[in-house]
Amino acid sequence: MSHKKSVCVVVGADGDLPIMQGAIDKLKYFGVPFSVRVVSAHRTPYQAEELAKTAREKGVGVIIAAAGKAAHLAGVLAAYTTLPVIAVPLKASTLDGLDALLSMVQMPTGVPVATVAIDGAANAGILAAQILSVEDPELTDKLAAFKDEMTAEYMRKDAEAVNRNW
Amino acid sequence: MSHKKSVCVVVGADGDLPIMQGAIDKLKYFGVPFSVRVVSAHRTPYQAEELAKTAREKGVGVIIAAAGKAAHLAGVLAAYTTLPVIAVPLKASTLDGLDALLSMVQMPTGVPVATVAIDGAANAGILAAQILSVEDPELTDKLAAFKDEMTAEYMRKDAEAVNRNW
Amino acid sequence: MSHKKSVCVVVGADGDLPIMQGAIDKLKYFGVPFSVRVVSAHRTPYQAEELAKTAREKGVGVIIAAAGKAAHLAGVLAAYTTLPVIAVPLKASTLDGLDALLSMVQMPTGVPVATVAIDGAANAGILAAQILSVEDPELTDKLAAFKDEMTAEYMRKDAEAVNRNW
Amino acid sequence: MSHKKSVCVVVGADGDLPIMQGAIDKLKYFGVPFSVRVVSAHRTPYQAEELAKTAREKGVGVIIAAAGKAAHLAGVLAAYTTLPVIAVPLKASTLDGLDALLSMVQMPTGVPVATVAIDGAANAGILAAQILSVEDPELTDKLAAFKDEMTAEYMRKDAEAVNRNW
Amino acid sequence: MSHKKSVCVVVGADGDLPIMQGAIDKLKYFGVPFSVRVVSAHRTPYQAEELAKTAREKGVGVIIAAAGKAAHLAGVLAAYTTLPVIAVPLKASTLDGLDALLSMVQMPTGVPVATVAIDGAANAGILAAQILSVEDPELTDKLAAFKDEMTAEYMRKDAEAVNRNW
Amino acid sequence: MSHKKSVCVVVGADGDLPIMQGAIDKLKYFGVPFSVRVVSAHRTPYQAEELAKTAREKGVGVIIAAAGKAAHLAGVLAAYTTLPVIAVPLKASTLDGLDALLSMVQMPTGVPVATVAIDGAANAGILAAQILSVEDPELTDKLAAFKDEMTAEYMRKDAEAVNRNW
Amino acid sequence: MSHKKSVCVVVGADGDLPIMQGAIDKLKYFGVPFSVRVVSAHRTPYQAEELAKTAREKGVGVIIAAAGKAAHLAGVLAAYTTLPVIAVPLKASTLDGLDALLSMVQMPTGVPVATVAIDGAANAGILAAQILSVEDPELTDKLAAFKDEMTAEYMRKDAEAVNRNW
Amino acid sequence: MSHKKSVCVVVGADGDLPIMQGAIDKLKYFGVPFSVRVVSAHRTPYQAEELAKTAREKGVGVIIAAAGKAAHLAGVLAAYTTLPVIAVPLKASTLDGLDALLSMVQMPTGVPVATVAIDGAANAGILAAQILSVEDPELTDKLAAFKDEMTAEYMRKDAEAVNRNW
Repeated sequence: MSHKKSVCVVVGADGDLPIMQGAIDKLKYFGVPFSVRVVSAHRTPYQAEELAKTAREKGVGVIIAAAGKAAHLAGVLAAYTTLPVIAVPLKASTLDGLDALLSMVQMPTGVPVATVAIDGAANAGILAAQILSVEDPELTDKLAAFKDEMTAEYMRKDAEAVNRNW
Repeated sequence: MSHKKSVCVVVGADGDLPIMQGAIDKLKYFGVPFSVRVVSAHRTPYQAEELAKTAREKGVGVIIAAAGKAAHLAGVLAAYTTLPVIAVPLKASTLDGLDALLSMVQMPTGVPVATVAIDGAANAGILAAQILSVEDPELTDKLAAFKDEMTAEYMRKDAEAVNRNW
Repeated sequence: MSHKKSVCVVVGADGDLPIMQGAIDKLKYFGVPFSVRVVSAHRTPYQAEELAKTAREKGVGVIIAAAGKAAHLAGVLAAYTTLPVIAVPLKASTLDGLDALLSMVQMPTGVPVATVAIDGAANAGILAAQILSVEDPELTDKLAAFKDEMTAEYMRKDAEAVNRNW
Repeated sequence: MSHKKSVCVVVGADGDLPIMQGAIDKLKYFGVPFSVRVVSAHRTPYQAEELAKTAREKGVGVIIAAAGKAAHLAGVLAAYTTLPVIAVPLKASTLDGLDALLSMVQMPTGVPVATVAIDGAANAGILAAQILSVEDPELTDKLAAFKDEMTAEYMRKDAEAVNRNW
Repeated sequence: MSHKKSVCVVVGADGDLPIMQGAIDKLKYFGVPFSVRVVSAHRTPYQAEELAKTAREKGVGVIIAAAGKAAHLAGVLAAYTTLPVIAVPLKASTLDGLDALLSMVQMPTGVPVATVAIDGAANAGILAAQILSVEDPELTDKLAAFKDEMTAEYMRKDAEAVNRNW
Repeated sequence: MSHKKSVCVVVGADGDLPIMQGAIDKLKYFGVPFSVRVVSAHRTPYQAEELAKTAREKGVGVIIAAAGKAAHLAGVLAAYTTLPVIAVPLKASTLDGLDALLSMVQMPTGVPVATVAIDGAANAGILAAQILSVEDPELTDKLAAFKDEMTAEYMRKDAEAVNRNW
Repeated sequence: MSHKKSVCVVVGADGDLPIMQGAIDKLKYFGVPFSVRVVSAHRTPYQAEELAKTAREKGVGVIIAAAGKAAHLAGVLAAYTTLPVIAVPLKASTLDGLDALLSMVQMPTGVPVATVAIDGAANAGILAAQILSVEDPELTDKLAAFKDEMTAEYMRKDAEAVNRNW
Repeated sequence: MSHKKSVCVVVGADGDLPIMQGAIDKLKYFGVPFSVRVVSAHRTPYQAEELAKTAREKGVGVIIAAAGKAAHLAGVLAAYTTLPVIAVPLKASTLDGLDALLSMVQMPTGVPVATVAIDGAANAGILAAQILSVEDPELTDKLAAFKDEMTAEYMRKDAEAVNRNW
């Protein structure tokens, strides 16, 4: 598995780790290697720079960056790498995550990030797997199977609703 | 170049093509093969389904979907494929594109899309190239060169500002 | 009752069923036949297509679609049918349902949906009955009686307020 | 055609008539009889009451109400009738129509209106036709033909995009 | 006291009475006569009309109207009277009262209402007293005394803060 | 006319005078005496204090305060008087007047202002007249006549719409 | 320490003191002298004027003003002084502090305030220290040490995340 | 004048220089030395780092950072310095500058920036002068004179309004 590209999951504060477990669980489910980092664009900017600059040479294929409020983490990492960076805006104590969403998604021309839903940790993990699947038929099959399972689960729930006595 | 993965740029209405030229220009700049489609989640849903279902087998590596208002296009395409789908929310006649942004970025768990800025066509093209670069050293070099050029251009502008007589 | 048009209540996730009980209760109150489905625009898109395409021939007169976040369900169903589709935006974990509201109400020209209030399940049921009442004098009478009861209830409450010792 | 239910298009100010031409055009296209009224919930409240109370007996099947700012028109008409009322929030001089949208869509339990997009006049006309089509096979056929034409038009545009030299 | 103008406090639903106690308390504090009504623009529109049309002749000087969601109550009352109508937007289950605020404050030209803060019941009572004070020196004195008490209370709190050991 | 209470129209900047002409026109229409002031809560705070403190003794019955952006004017005037203060939030160069609206309407308990629509100058003038009409039967009659004229104008427009060949 | 400039922490209501403890703690941490006041722009305007006018002569170098809703406090203080005023918008019972943020940050040209995050008490204290550090090398060293400690703490958390068994 | 602290005005793109002329003009007016830089948090991150790290030793007392969209510039500079950083959110092509405002003002605990109004360039210049005035009596006098001139100008405008024939 060592030749596989890995995913680096970065949070802007260790308090964000529980919600990002959703991304980690998906990466484990798909067998994608990953590392987890606590790096802040504002409190440990040199670590952010170092992480992003050396990611590709260390075998990272995708970076997932999660942060709340004025969420600069994804953009700052994207400044130092050409790897795709997935941004997860987190809901903090006010404004329902709209601040983090706009701080992430509205990146200026030249330095994109790939933003998912507010608190969308699981989807960040799935999107990372989708990105890595482009050249990986085995991972493609796993993603297709995951999709089939979701469909099957929804069809079971649909059947229950259809048959329930309302 | 035929073994390279391509990008499929999809717009929800032909009136959106001029703004998406920004994505096409970037793909051409990076030498990434691409196709352009006008497919609507609501007006040609079968075409949307067909496009998404067959994309991977046709050599597509990334889909870019641009739409305005209740922008369902990216989500609907993502429903039928495991490829990464980049969503470009477009500003229409009202609400400044906030409707399209929320309609795209807030995807439910299981079916992510990768949202860029409102009207962020160029960034969608760059992000697609970044995704394809994960396993493509040549494209990685092009992206690094692009980044260096941006930096150089900004340093020239900075030098001008420093030397200008304010 | 078999010649009567029915209403199909569709939720994007089974977790949305409790709130949509409000619609079901109104349909039962007015004696409108109904079915309940769990169908997701993103997780079971083929079921959504099938449901919408065959609804009219199965005697459905109105579809009610409830979903949260990037709520594509109503629009996707409307893509496959000419029946009126009522959209109920649901409040999910963040943004107070504004994302679902805009994802539903801002439909592009050619494919309308009829949006009610955020979490407005009961009103969706009443609106469905109003639509079916256009050609149904008996249902019209029931709606008028319902309106009269509401008025009477409010007048009782008004009388209480007037007579209360403040 | 006299036995057919008609649609009453109501605007809150005569300045709103040009944008509502989009609804009128669709009603004419589908051969749905209609009337046009300028009635204000605040300036001619008795006329609003009279219009709504007598609509059903005059053969109206659907009311379309368009207004901007604090758009009470649809709700006030719905207070006096059991007919379905379609609400068209209009963009006025500020706030991009968000005020009208929320004033219309957030109706309290018991008195629904069916809200379409901001400035969504054409969709209001189509939705009215869809509502009347529930018991009208001929109108159903016209709506299906309209949908087919939209699809055909989009497929032509798609073919142009596919064949264009980008 | 019978020659004094009174204030009519109207709520759109009896569930809104507890929060409007804040207005009632202020009216009692200032010795302003008042009545309390439960009248809905949508559920008891005739009562709303009757209330507003006859208010001035019954000795009402100011109407206070409180409602949530698509809060049409103040505007509908203002349609039937030339008395000043104070609007209190109430926070309901979603959107934090922004819907009620915009539904009230954005009234069209010709029919104003006087909007106070979301859930601003006490201020509605004070504003009503201020309006009635314009020609009432005794009430003016009471308002001035109230203002002085507020100031004194704040100066006590300030002194506590200054002297506290931080 | 000298015993009549007057209205003081205050703008936070002289650039706001053209839009406030709408209020002045209504005051002239109703024969309400008025004065016009340019006073800024931030640039001439002593003038604001002086204006508000002495208003009642100078025969002012209502203050109208119009300002944009962080619109503190109405609140600052209300701090120094017990007269009713009408607040007109103005749309400035950005945010569509939402900043001014919230800065005005969300006043803390104890110090209300009466907020009208964004750029609602005419309504501020009418509301001032309504406030002064509470104890003024002549002004009441003028307001009733104004309302009748509005109604008549709308009925003419309605008749035109009804009779127009659509 | 008496020659040092102090910071005056002002809250618009004593209920805001607990959240502003975050600012006080930082000032104590950095050894910056401070005073605490409860002064309301609307309830004790003369005290606000007096505080701001005399602050500089009393050795105050920075004012921190915290308020919620229509938060005029910072702007009103800034009207009476040329000292830098830091504004802390507070989240009150509704709108998540957006009202206070816009009421503070959108100050008109000529009278700036320095706004920090909603409920950003600690940052207000740090910013005050940064302002006072411009001419104070000792305080500069303390701020640098504080920054180093933050970095060290984040690096420890990062190391924990790296070494944890996910 | 060489011993005076200077202000460094930084823009995220050279297209932002015209609007920031408003800050430069104020700095020149107050005789505050300044430099102007074009530095992007995303396109020239090393230059941002270098600028911020060396600013204090180069005699900079305040940094002004202006940027639009996902405006990370001020936060990124603040990550590398203990100097006060003033943030100017700029209105770009969409969302009226709300994205830049939230991206700047919502900084996490530990790393504050001092945010002024959207497009508030002049106020950024004045605020920088206020910060430098804390230990500079001459600059304090200039700021007081500026305030007096503003007041005088407003009083002239007020006199014109008072004397104008309305």
